[in-house]
Amino acid sequence: MSILTPEIQAELAKQAIELPSWAFGNSGTRFKVFGTPGTPRDPYEKIADAAQVNQYTALSPSVALHIPWDKVDSYDDLRKYAEDLGVSLGTINSNTFQDDDYKFGALTHEDAGIRRKAIDHHLECIDIMDQTGSRDLKIWLAEGSNYPGQTDMRGRQDRLNDSLRTIYERIGDDQRLVLEYKFFEPSFYHTDVPDWGTSYAQVASLGDRAMVCLDTGHHAPGTNIEFIVMQLLRLGKLGSFDFNSRFYADDDLIVGAADPFQLFRIIVEVIRGGGYGDPDVAFMLDQCHNVEDKIPGQIRSVLNVQEMTARALLIDHEALRAAQVSGDVLAANAIFMDAFYTDVRPALAEWRESRGLPADPMAAFAASGYLAKIAEERVGGVQAGWGA
Amino acid sequence: MSILTPEIQAELAKQAIELPSWAFGNSGTRFKVFGTPGTPRDPYEKIADAAQVNQYTALSPSVALHIPWDKVDSYDDLRKYAEDLGVSLGTINSNTFQDDDYKFGALTHEDAGIRRKAIDHHLECIDIMDQTGSRDLKIWLAEGSNYPGQTDMRGRQDRLNDSLRTIYERIGDDQRLVLEYKFFEPSFYHTDVPDWGTSYAQVASLGDRAMVCLDTGHHAPGTNIEFIVMQLLRLGKLGSFDFNSRFYADDDLIVGAADPFQLFRIIVEVIRGGGYGDPDVAFMLDQCHNVEDKIPGQIRSVLNVQEMTARALLIDHEALRAAQVSGDVLAANAIFMDAFYTDVRPALAEWRESRGLPADPMAAFAASGYLAKIAEERVGGVQAGWGA
Amino acid sequence: MSILTPEIQAELAKQAIELPSWAFGNSGTRFKVFGTPGTPRDPYEKIADAAQVNQYTALSPSVALHIPWDKVDSYDDLRKYAEDLGVSLGTINSNTFQDDDYKFGALTHEDAGIRRKAIDHHLECIDIMDQTGSRDLKIWLAEGSNYPGQTDMRGRQDRLNDSLRTIYERIGDDQRLVLEYKFFEPSFYHTDVPDWGTSYAQVASLGDRAMVCLDTGHHAPGTNIEFIVMQLLRLGKLGSFDFNSRFYADDDLIVGAADPFQLFRIIVEVIRGGGYGDPDVAFMLDQCHNVEDKIPGQIRSVLNVQEMTARALLIDHEALRAAQVSGDVLAANAIFMDAFYTDVRPALAEWRESRGLPADPMAAFAASGYLAKIAEERVGGVQAGWGA
Amino acid sequence: MSILTPEIQAELAKQAIELPSWAFGNSGTRFKVFGTPGTPRDPYEKIADAAQVNQYTALSPSVALHIPWDKVDSYDDLRKYAEDLGVSLGTINSNTFQDDDYKFGALTHEDAGIRRKAIDHHLECIDIMDQTGSRDLKIWLAEGSNYPGQTDMRGRQDRLNDSLRTIYERIGDDQRLVLEYKFFEPSFYHTDVPDWGTSYAQVASLGDRAMVCLDTGHHAPGTNIEFIVMQLLRLGKLGSFDFNSRFYADDDLIVGAADPFQLFRIIVEVIRGGGYGDPDVAFMLDQCHNVEDKIPGQIRSVLNVQEMTARALLIDHEALRAAQVSGDVLAANAIFMDAFYTDVRPALAEWRESRGLPADPMAAFAASGYLAKIAEERVGGVQAGWGA
Repeated sequence: MSILTPEIQAELAKQAIELPSWAFGNSGTRFKVFGTPGTPRDPYEKIADAAQVNQYTALSPSVALHIPWDKVDSYDDLRKYAEDLGVSLGTINSNTFQDDDYKFGALTHEDAGIRRKAIDHHLECIDIMDQTGSRDLKIWLAEGSNYPGQTDMRGRQDRLNDSLRTIYERIGDDQRLVLEYKFFEPSFYHTDVPDWGTSYAQVASLGDRAMVCLDTGHHAPGTNIEFIVMQLLRLGKLGSFDFNSRFYADDDLIVGAADPFQLFRIIVEVIRGGGYGDPDVAFMLDQCHNVEDKIPGQIRSVLNVQEMTARALLIDHEALRAAQVSGDVLAANAIFMDAFYTDVRPALAEWRESRGLPADPMAAFAASGYLAKIAEERVGGVQAGWGA
Repeated sequence: MSILTPEIQAELAKQAIELPSWAFGNSGTRFKVFGTPGTPRDPYEKIADAAQVNQYTALSPSVALHIPWDKVDSYDDLRKYAEDLGVSLGTINSNTFQDDDYKFGALTHEDAGIRRKAIDHHLECIDIMDQTGSRDLKIWLAEGSNYPGQTDMRGRQDRLNDSLRTIYERIGDDQRLVLEYKFFEPSFYHTDVPDWGTSYAQVASLGDRAMVCLDTGHHAPGTNIEFIVMQLLRLGKLGSFDFNSRFYADDDLIVGAADPFQLFRIIVEVIRGGGYGDPDVAFMLDQCHNVEDKIPGQIRSVLNVQEMTARALLIDHEALRAAQVSGDVLAANAIFMDAFYTDVRPALAEWRESRGLPADPMAAFAASGYLAKIAEERVGGVQAGWGA
Repeated sequence: MSILTPEIQAELAKQAIELPSWAFGNSGTRFKVFGTPGTPRDPYEKIADAAQVNQYTALSPSVALHIPWDKVDSYDDLRKYAEDLGVSLGTINSNTFQDDDYKFGALTHEDAGIRRKAIDHHLECIDIMDQTGSRDLKIWLAEGSNYPGQTDMRGRQDRLNDSLRTIYERIGDDQRLVLEYKFFEPSFYHTDVPDWGTSYAQVASLGDRAMVCLDTGHHAPGTNIEFIVMQLLRLGKLGSFDFNSRFYADDDLIVGAADPFQLFRIIVEVIRGGGYGDPDVAFMLDQCHNVEDKIPGQIRSVLNVQEMTARALLIDHEALRAAQVSGDVLAANAIFMDAFYTDVRPALAEWRESRGLPADPMAAFAASGYLAKIAEERVGGVQAGWGA
Repeated sequence: MSILTPEIQAELAKQAIELPSWAFGNSGTRFKVFGTPGTPRDPYEKIADAAQVNQYTALSPSVALHIPWDKVDSYDDLRKYAEDLGVSLGTINSNTFQDDDYKFGALTHEDAGIRRKAIDHHLECIDIMDQTGSRDLKIWLAEGSNYPGQTDMRGRQDRLNDSLRTIYERIGDDQRLVLEYKFFEPSFYHTDVPDWGTSYAQVASLGDRAMVCLDTGHHAPGTNIEFIVMQLLRLGKLGSFDFNSRFYADDDLIVGAADPFQLFRIIVEVIRGGGYGDPDVAFMLDQCHNVEDKIPGQIRSVLNVQEMTARALLIDHEALRAAQVSGDVLAANAIFMDAFYTDVRPALAEWRESRGLPADPMAAFAASGYLAKIAEERVGGVQAGWGA
């Protein structure tokens, strides 16, 4: 019998990990963006690529869009195109960091006119959500300052609250505002939403449909991220995840690549706190495939999350609780590690096949010839990237 | 005319920095505690030493106690002893990290009996507060775990909330519960109150008289501490400071020693947010003089805070706001730095003399012969330290 | 057939991990040392405990001593006692951090008399090595300063070199001097040997029998430790490892507990660089079991190293090189991760049994009743700890 | 009399800080590069801007070039143009991180052809040095990998050594090869020259004219940079500085902006180790003015270095040594801090005027109208940036 019990299989079958459209475009560092053949040239091609990931894994039924990068004439067309490929349109991500007006802030700017422009951009995003059927408006607030004294942090915090409130008032009853925090970058002295506490304090003041987004790469060195997962679930404010991994800063590497055990601990805490299979806690990727192929990079990523979820589901919670209660440190840790160290990959391969999926999605995709096909077809036009 | 205007002098005259009794005892690292001649052997001697700091600086009118380290038969006697030396008894600090029962937690422990014991300890602290006239009960929650799986972080958070609630209910109308957070140590995997967000969420659920304590050494590398000061003041929840400085972890060095400019920025934000001269925001030291003399170490510390406050008060806020609003990054930063780089020490020396204080408190204390005197007198008995 | 091929088994059979005698004594943080029943009261009892680890695992044939903690009247007796229990005496660790004279330095001290005292201590250690048959003198230089300006870092570096040279001259032809580096603690501003570069520069100036010791917990956050392993092996200067793990600072947790994947990468690089099974690269543990039982903590530790070594030996190097050369990032990473994710535990259990060892050393030791026995027997006397 | 004694003035008069041509072009983060009016469009305009900095400060007599960004038809013309403006051409910086061939390495690449291409680029740089009269070839090795297993770190280190040796052999007798290290970025798992130890080991194997470049922003959090300065000077291998400052990663902020006290400590150690006024230790800036004006940003930077140098020169070394030798921690620290806290700006302004320079270079430059002039004149063409 499989180590994946029917109960575990039922849990695994619930898993859905949203893909970001921009993961299929080119990305890089401030020093260089390396291109790849076949990179999408418009939102349709990004969605086609994203659909490939779902086709081979059944793990990624939706695609997040970034506005204005993914602006199209007809969102209805885009939605139908996506649905024909078996995926839906998901979270709408706003962008207030690439317009020259936003050099010194957007929702926090000193100038009411620029704040209004940034608010209006978010209202436009909500209009798009109404057309795409998206539930979540995700705001990554890339605002801050580079030098002490450059700005009045307190005034910005208050203006941010006003701006968010105006946006929140426009959010529909079935929609949510999700506020992402980030430790640093692109600002280097202060960031207006640098930690979960700030995001929590801001969204708690707005209302029930305002939530926190936790990007796993947006913390100080040494931060215990699963603790934050636990706390936000406890406070009822964990809205979504941006999964990726990092060694140093916001490296945006493939989830699980830098520290698989950390990913395991995070998922254990999601399950522990009732966040798994809970529609109110959205799983999403947010990565940059600077040097690796993008589509297989995304397949690898969703598989990493799936494999680690399977491991987390293996924990013998009864035995674990007994060891914890008795203060048997080594026994508790051993039960925990046993789940992590168990190799779930053969059982997962078998289970995939039982569901009509390829046992090895990476190999199946490679064999499909899709990369060669798009490299040939997508010639001319401008490759999509973080700025387009 | 002095660069310290009458308005600035009036602000400076308000400054009060509480000293911790334990700063006068021996402290060290896990590897070694080096002793010094003349170290206090009981709470009375600690208060005598603390009073010296105030005598030469008029900056430290109160002394915080740590229970059980500072337990005495009569707090009335201790209070009178302190008052005769010109100081009052201040914050009461509880201790739930040195009893063998607390190896796996105290207010968070799985065992209701141990939790009760820890709660009772806090109730005893409040009894002592009633006798000493102290306003604040400060709780540093040194609880956590060393290994993933060792404990159930979520359950602990809930039990913590229950325990704190029971303690809070006993707090008098003029008293406060102040909850300190700390990134890590003495636990190395998880800490139950690791960040300001957790402390804030916990105390916000208790009530108005529950506040956050910010220890400047208790953050991850790279954390923008003045941002947290700003945020907690904005949220009305900054109860007190534990001042010290650090290069790496919780080094507990003399405040301002490791990064004077950070101390400047913190005080600027305290003033900006209305926390200066505000009785609701208590300034306190929490340092370990492992290799330097303790009394002059404390004098140096309060002077560092005073000097940096004087610098912060020099900022030309009108010019700063104009530069900020106009987006002139270099001008705003220059105005900010100008205050920091101004040497306030001669003007402070003059001002001290005008108030009947020594111009150079360090030299005056050294000349007093007090250290030699206590080295001679305090022979025999057990020197006080972190554990006594 | 086992996934552990005969070649891999042959490699695994070579593994030897030295245990530190002090791991069996009590340890803790600067705030509290929690004791455990049955803790050894003298070096003989420490060695008896260490021998237990080897008895159940055949992985730890030698025990490192710490002088003066492990001083005995007759090292000959101690050696025979150890040999009777199936272990030998290994590395001698010096101690220049617990004598009051060393408050401001030992081998680096301004005072020639104190430097001489510290040098003499090392010469005494070499005398002991001659008696115990130890090869390595390990020097952890716990020297530094807490405040900028406190000391002249350059002069200290030169004096350190002089002191080390004097010690090195006394080292026998079959002996080695191994210099450990550490990022910070117990000093908080500067440490005299803070990084591998300093240790390397110092030992390179001494001669062939002076080497670097790499403690896995002694680095800045985010440091790529396997890179340093690679570099030191390349330079021919990696003398030994102190294994442990950490989340934040020098936490001294069980090796592999905090980041198993990092341990894997380190061992991969040891093997890659010819350091595995090489007598010139000594594997040793250096951990503190603050909250867990010490003997099973050590068993868990050597098993963690063994399991991770087995994983590392599984890497398909031919396929890996092909993927690396072709620039196939995802393929190369997948081959690498495949080894890490393979569960070697069942095959290791089988292999252990084939060698007359218990399949599950943790369970076998627990069943032996040894902990209960020593708890009963070792009553009275002073429990050993870091200071004794 | 000025606090700047004639001896100090003589030292200050020696100061020369090289400016990087690229500081005058646009730069930004991976998310956005904000442009400014008047940005140079070619190397001549960059040099014109750099000459402004020297005109107002007499601190920056030379300009570093970056190849290929600063390629021109005639370096003779460029040199004469610079000399007419009172500056010389300085360090030549190579670039092996923006060509598509270098995606997986340059001097370390698996492919001998690509390595040869990268070596040839450096030989071309040396040809240019011969024409510009530059002494130093600076190599920042932006090579590494993003994923464990992606590459063979050891093989790369050996190939790096081979490539560097080939380049070094071409270096003229009066020229130097300077190798810069960097903790991370643009690679996120491993960097081929991540620390001073690696740079030191590499250049030590080449010869006397190979040196280490220390960029103040290229270290792990918490690194004691002045210790590295001390060590490299002691080892005779500190070739040059890239000055800037940072709060988190390689923020490339204005030198002294993030932690002025750290800059002070670094310069103290430069002076202590004989590196000040020593032609073998080159001072250079390497910053990105993402949000502030570039020319005044550079003026501010050289003034920061000058002011901090003046403070460092104020240290009473005799008194400091006495305090250090006697183990008087507080006294030693106080002497050190006294120099840091002394406001040297009025005396510097006076000294500048005595030399025919403006007392306030920032104000004088602002009053000159140069920024408005170039904003008007430099219309059309492509603004220079990090990639051009």
